[in-house]
Amino acid sequence: MTSTPRTAREVHIVRRPAGPLSAADFAVAETALPDLAPGEFLIANRLLSIDPVRRVFFANGTAPLNAGLHSFSIGEVVESRHPGYAPGELVGHYQGLRDFAVGRGDETRKITAGGDPLEWHMGPLGVGGFFAYVGLIEVARARPGESVLVSSAAGSVGSLAVQLARLIGCRTVATVGSADKQAWLTDVAGVETVIDYKQADWRERLAAALPDGLDVYFDNVGGAQLDAALSLINPQGRVAVCGMVSAYDSATPFSERAGAWTWRMMTSQVELKSYHVRDHQHLWPAFQRSVGDWLRNGAIQTETQVRDGLDAIPQAFVDLIAGRSLGKTVVRL
Amino acid sequence: MTSTPRTAREVHIVRRPAGPLSAADFAVAETALPDLAPGEFLIANRLLSIDPVRRVFFANGTAPLNAGLHSFSIGEVVESRHPGYAPGELVGHYQGLRDFAVGRGDETRKITAGGDPLEWHMGPLGVGGFFAYVGLIEVARARPGESVLVSSAAGSVGSLAVQLARLIGCRTVATVGSADKQAWLTDVAGVETVIDYKQADWRERLAAALPDGLDVYFDNVGGAQLDAALSLINPQGRVAVCGMVSAYDSATPFSERAGAWTWRMMTSQVELKSYHVRDHQHLWPAFQRSVGDWLRNGAIQTETQVRDGLDAIPQAFVDLIAGRSLGKTVVRL
Repeated sequence: MTSTPRTAREVHIVRRPAGPLSAADFAVAETALPDLAPGEFLIANRLLSIDPVRRVFFANGTAPLNAGLHSFSIGEVVESRHPGYAPGELVGHYQGLRDFAVGRGDETRKITAGGDPLEWHMGPLGVGGFFAYVGLIEVARARPGESVLVSSAAGSVGSLAVQLARLIGCRTVATVGSADKQAWLTDVAGVETVIDYKQADWRERLAAALPDGLDVYFDNVGGAQLDAALSLINPQGRVAVCGMVSAYDSATPFSERAGAWTWRMMTSQVELKSYHVRDHQHLWPAFQRSVGDWLRNGAIQTETQVRDGLDAIPQAFVDLIAGRSLGKTVVRL
Repeated sequence: MTSTPRTAREVHIVRRPAGPLSAADFAVAETALPDLAPGEFLIANRLLSIDPVRRVFFANGTAPLNAGLHSFSIGEVVESRHPGYAPGELVGHYQGLRDFAVGRGDETRKITAGGDPLEWHMGPLGVGGFFAYVGLIEVARARPGESVLVSSAAGSVGSLAVQLARLIGCRTVATVGSADKQAWLTDVAGVETVIDYKQADWRERLAAALPDGLDVYFDNVGGAQLDAALSLINPQGRVAVCGMVSAYDSATPFSERAGAWTWRMMTSQVELKSYHVRDHQHLWPAFQRSVGDWLRNGAIQTETQVRDGLDAIPQAFVDLIAGRSLGKTVVRL
């Protein structure tokens, strides 16, 4: 005999949010739970992850209406017909915002909390923490002595990113949107400089906090803060684009906004990199050899606009800028 | 006895361009040439490089008024008091838009033209070609079978980049601004698809030319074409930012324009990269170990907002999006 529940309660969105998200966009629905088949187990969820990026999926159709919402969840196995999962074990999964879920082993990760708070596996030891760790260390490659700016730095991801930066030995600057978050970061998390971006002079404060410029920006918000960070960034600077919460809570679809490309970029693991050839001089011999050969054997075609005399220079510039010149423009003396 | 000239003629800008560049912004001035000191040599320039990016320096003050303009130049040593440089040798240097220059060996590169046209060392075998080579191969890492888009593809840099892409085995798409450039790229350079961005439907043509999306964008123009490329880019796509000629010929300073950050980025060798943690799973064990230790010994502080029950979920989202929640938000069931 078991006390297996016959139904689960799950959270739906019942309409696409128009303007700021409203509680009336949601409803809780009751659904039937099937009997467990061999290989299945029943999970009683203990923690459900609430993540800002879901707001986008509510609006853009990725999250269906009137259906269970996916989200990372941690629960306890309470009944099992799977040999690898015993009652009492903790698992993480993405079935989401519901009280009971049927697990099948795939896409389920066992969690060993030990004596640690289980909440850690939703935050700093969970997916959000991993986003911070990968973004700061693997993507942005923050190094000791560098300056690191983290936006939304009191949030789940940002609060870990900015402290990892401090532990690496970086100069840390954080932005937040309230005085209590500012106090927590300064007093509890040990961040050097914390700026409230809702104050009118936040850009000036940011520039003043980074007198030698910015080496790494860990971006959770996009928009004006991304602009400001890029205006301060140093040569060879790196930006890890993790989120863009500034753009989530709006009725205007991403595709119709200025800066729409940032969303495409964020969701596509794109790398946007500028360069100067002086940093790549070791390639000069290979370049000369390959391209020289290709030019000589006709594999590469080239075109040169030759103009004569110093006096031709002004018009050469004018025509070049106006797009009237094909290939390389040179002046012969 | 020598026939050493006593004066040189050099090109100046005499006023900052306002609106489209005008020939009246320039003047040619005569300057005295000093007698050669030991270690110096006299260069008679043969080719002067005309590059769109100079337009920016004319406007932003990097190029001083009423002074010799810097630019890459190739000349012949015609007199020498330097043991390493003999008359008749060819050298490249940055003294720029003048007929005669005094060389000192530093910042001067010897050029061996052999039987090749000297112009090649201004174009495909010169600095412009090297920008194309480094950007496509080292920065964007174009690989066989990938789709590569090159803008300003009939220009000095772009015309090499798009042909290098073809030789690597990429599917090549190019944009240009005139029918004759389009014809040259198609008929001479062998580019698969060439689109005239001045036609009204260029965005639709670009999308149609890239039915499987875009893997690499080699960007010479910025602006609307960068936007369009990013709207089509595939996961793991790369963008090499080489130039942004669309923005050069304007009276509005970069700092006052939308997208001003792209200029900062272009001149600072910045890397802007989005990421997903699923591509970095090999780091999970190190992450769990390091962050777990730091949490347990207090090196990292963390904060969790715990809410109870499925019914709390809607407001949890609302508060989180509104910036009212510090740290990780979870719902406890």
